[in-house]
Amino acid sequence: MRFLLGLALCATTLALAGDVVRPKHEIDLSNPYSTDSVPAYAGDHAAVHAYIDAEIEAHTAALQRWMRQRSISAQNVGVRDMAEMVRGDFEALGFAEAELVNTAGHPGVWGYYDAGAEKTLMVYMMYDVQPVDPEDWRSPPFEAALVDTPQGRAIMARGATNQKGPQRAFLNAVEAILAVDGELPVNLMITAEGEEELGSPNYPEIVDRYEARLKQADGVIFPMSGQDPAGQMSMVLGVKGIVYWELEARGGAWGGPVAAEIHGSLKAIADSPVLRLAQAISSLVGDDGNTIVVPGYYDDVRPPTAEEQSLIAGYLQQANLATLRDMLGVERWIDGMDGLDVLHDLIYAPTMNIDGIWAGYTGVGVKTILPHMATAKMDSRLPVGIDPDEALAKIRAHLDARGFEDVAMNVLAAYPASQTSVGTDLVRSAIAVYKRYGATPIVNPRAAGSAPFYEFTDRLGLPMIPFGLGHGRGAHAPNEVFVVESAGEVAGLAEIEKAYADLLYAFAAD
Amino acid sequence: MRFLLGLALCATTLALAGDVVRPKHEIDLSNPYSTDSVPAYAGDHAAVHAYIDAEIEAHTAALQRWMRQRSISAQNVGVRDMAEMVRGDFEALGFAEAELVNTAGHPGVWGYYDAGAEKTLMVYMMYDVQPVDPEDWRSPPFEAALVDTPQGRAIMARGATNQKGPQRAFLNAVEAILAVDGELPVNLMITAEGEEELGSPNYPEIVDRYEARLKQADGVIFPMSGQDPAGQMSMVLGVKGIVYWELEARGGAWGGPVAAEIHGSLKAIADSPVLRLAQAISSLVGDDGNTIVVPGYYDDVRPPTAEEQSLIAGYLQQANLATLRDMLGVERWIDGMDGLDVLHDLIYAPTMNIDGIWAGYTGVGVKTILPHMATAKMDSRLPVGIDPDEALAKIRAHLDARGFEDVAMNVLAAYPASQTSVGTDLVRSAIAVYKRYGATPIVNPRAAGSAPFYEFTDRLGLPMIPFGLGHGRGAHAPNEVFVVESAGEVAGLAEIEKAYADLLYAFAAD
Repeated sequence: MRFLLGLALCATTLALAGDVVRPKHEIDLSNPYSTDSVPAYAGDHAAVHAYIDAEIEAHTAALQRWMRQRSISAQNVGVRDMAEMVRGDFEALGFAEAELVNTAGHPGVWGYYDAGAEKTLMVYMMYDVQPVDPEDWRSPPFEAALVDTPQGRAIMARGATNQKGPQRAFLNAVEAILAVDGELPVNLMITAEGEEELGSPNYPEIVDRYEARLKQADGVIFPMSGQDPAGQMSMVLGVKGIVYWELEARGGAWGGPVAAEIHGSLKAIADSPVLRLAQAISSLVGDDGNTIVVPGYYDDVRPPTAEEQSLIAGYLQQANLATLRDMLGVERWIDGMDGLDVLHDLIYAPTMNIDGIWAGYTGVGVKTILPHMATAKMDSRLPVGIDPDEALAKIRAHLDARGFEDVAMNVLAAYPASQTSVGTDLVRSAIAVYKRYGATPIVNPRAAGSAPFYEFTDRLGLPMIPFGLGHGRGAHAPNEVFVVESAGEVAGLAEIEKAYADLLYAFAAD
Repeated sequence: MRFLLGLALCATTLALAGDVVRPKHEIDLSNPYSTDSVPAYAGDHAAVHAYIDAEIEAHTAALQRWMRQRSISAQNVGVRDMAEMVRGDFEALGFAEAELVNTAGHPGVWGYYDAGAEKTLMVYMMYDVQPVDPEDWRSPPFEAALVDTPQGRAIMARGATNQKGPQRAFLNAVEAILAVDGELPVNLMITAEGEEELGSPNYPEIVDRYEARLKQADGVIFPMSGQDPAGQMSMVLGVKGIVYWELEARGGAWGGPVAAEIHGSLKAIADSPVLRLAQAISSLVGDDGNTIVVPGYYDDVRPPTAEEQSLIAGYLQQANLATLRDMLGVERWIDGMDGLDVLHDLIYAPTMNIDGIWAGYTGVGVKTILPHMATAKMDSRLPVGIDPDEALAKIRAHLDARGFEDVAMNVLAAYPASQTSVGTDLVRSAIAVYKRYGATPIVNPRAAGSAPFYEFTDRLGLPMIPFGLGHGRGAHAPNEVFVVESAGEVAGLAEIEKAYADLLYAFAAD
């Protein structure tokens, strides 16, 4: 009898976890992509560049003004004031249209600059920032003080690099062109949202309102500081999607205390919702903590295209993945992997992450209770091919199949991945401008992070890239910085702005 | 190859979890214990009782004075002031010795009242209380306001029933006897500690100092309100032991971020300390969340003695376990068990409980991080037979064997169970007094909770029981109360005090 039970358990184990392996796709490294085929941009805009140099103090202050305005979307702190500041800045620059866009959540901001030009560049902006734990910061997160970093003088602030610094730098460049030329070489359509850090639940509403006009644009950029600490430019042609949810276990008909914590000694006869949550979470991955055992979770990952394989081959020859590991304070990647495997997983691996967890007594010393509820915040990054709604459905079905029907899932965000081809005009213009500043980019087919870029690539049908010289770090973490005066390796604010100006000219001419 | 792997996994599963079953010992129910053999106490102490009735307002105020003095040992709030208050009260009552006892932690208090009597009663007290979350309370936890409950007027306060109300009521009884008779019928030795809620790490130091004298005592009581909401008295002859520890997972050589949280998207290549903690916790129990799969954890549970089986048989005939479930807000006990199984597990089941857990972002909305550390507070209740140090060693060895060597265990408390026989003078006196007040007790061989009573029973060799009429609830939870004016079912403060006085007389005469 016990032997039969053993066999039954064994079959279950095999079916649920034993057979799942994280897929590693074959990557053909024989045809590495190179930016050699794209010449450096050579347009002469000396007067605009000189204006930028002359105004750099005022331009730096404009960045600080944005960063000092809190705009924590998750906590609704300063959000509308920031939206008004963005709208006011559009107006001050002479945009024909500059208006708040009401949504079911925080407002968006729409700006249209009509240059009477043939080409139109759409700019995606986010004006919200992540929450902060101020006690972890060397300089207060909303003081936007200038601090010294190994890469030069930098502004330290929540939102410094993610994303206020690069975005206001872009607007500084627009101001410079208008001051010198009186007109822009391209029309601009800007949509700014205040909920990127919430997973952009209402950004589609903003696109709804201007959809027909946006489809007439020729490409989209997202201002972003793309240089690593050594000055190496990285260009990213896509992003992963994301699903984000809370998992909550509570006492109920299945067992456990229902309304409030009870004395810890009653664990002898009462089930524990906290243990149940730990088990539900553990059930999602294999013993390695990394292999997602939710049935079919890896099935829809789209294998690498020929272009992506070529880009990966080129990227591998140039990228310094060891720098990334040092920068992040990680001693060992998953399974001790390196090189191609790291790159593969950043691009193609779905993830299962716990962003936070809490239950019961979390203070100092001993308190003996059996808590009645426990909650975890979780997210899963989705490579191209995985539909967010299907991913959530598979997770829910898996929890149900493992007996965790009572563990509630509260979905906070869900959107798919996005991809742009390296062969588009926009990408070629961007590479050409970067090369002019000695920042020949390494081209990465897709970032591990998420942004709602599918709205541009899939819905509007436009090429879309983050663009910008410069260096920042600490996004979603303490001590976020954006370098404004270079110590030599990365671009300072003046060069960053000159490159934005050049991109508008280059894109207009391409 | 895959098939072989499957078999290997299968064997592991069987060895680690498949074979473990929670032991249920055979209990012989044919010889139920009854208190019928003990006559009700009949001594005449009418003058003392009248004094108590006359002074009940001042006596209630004395309870409130103790409860309004904060003494949260885990947070070192008000602890020394409370110790001074206890010492001062001993002195005011005319104790020959009343002094603070320094320890490595919070001070103890020693009191000796020399009545020149033949017999000496030792009284164990704890003057510390659990932490509070004030927003969960109907009345502020340190206001000690009078509130209405179904059982009558009660004082609501942290520490009301656990343990200030019963303890100060005992001292009120002492005051009444002295006021009326001028002398006590027994000598008193009182040790009060300020770290019971921390697992009594330094109480042994207090016993050290007076050990030779304490061994001369004839028994020990712990003042405690023992009546349930219907007035049923429960008498407890023992307690479980406890081990309490923090489990902490951090990034390190094995993987994961080491110094600070990193961006959540990096889960693609970096291990998660939070997932690791969830897995380490889950590894301690079977799929049911209740069966402890730590090898050998159940081995040393001492099977029920003949006396215990007799007591269990008697207890089962009288105890209303359904009331307990309603009172605690639990819809279903573990495995839907009831009756004898519930009682068995309260007495004989070791537990594995999570008191609290925390990591990463626990605020509102979305924040996408991969936290670098995660912590859980855990405890395990130990029936008679399990050595706390061995229990901790087995848990550590199990975590190591499952590959969680990097998950740190920080032990905060560890002590064994304690047991007193129903046949001792002290227990017979207690039953006799209870019966006088119509509160014939159900005698429970052992409580599910923990207290350092092994110091008395095992080290000093004394019989030891909690003693006291009255009703309270909410220990370790919000809205803790202690009833002082009965609505009919439970004893009010006057009766509680009269019973304490009677116990001193009964014990002296036995």
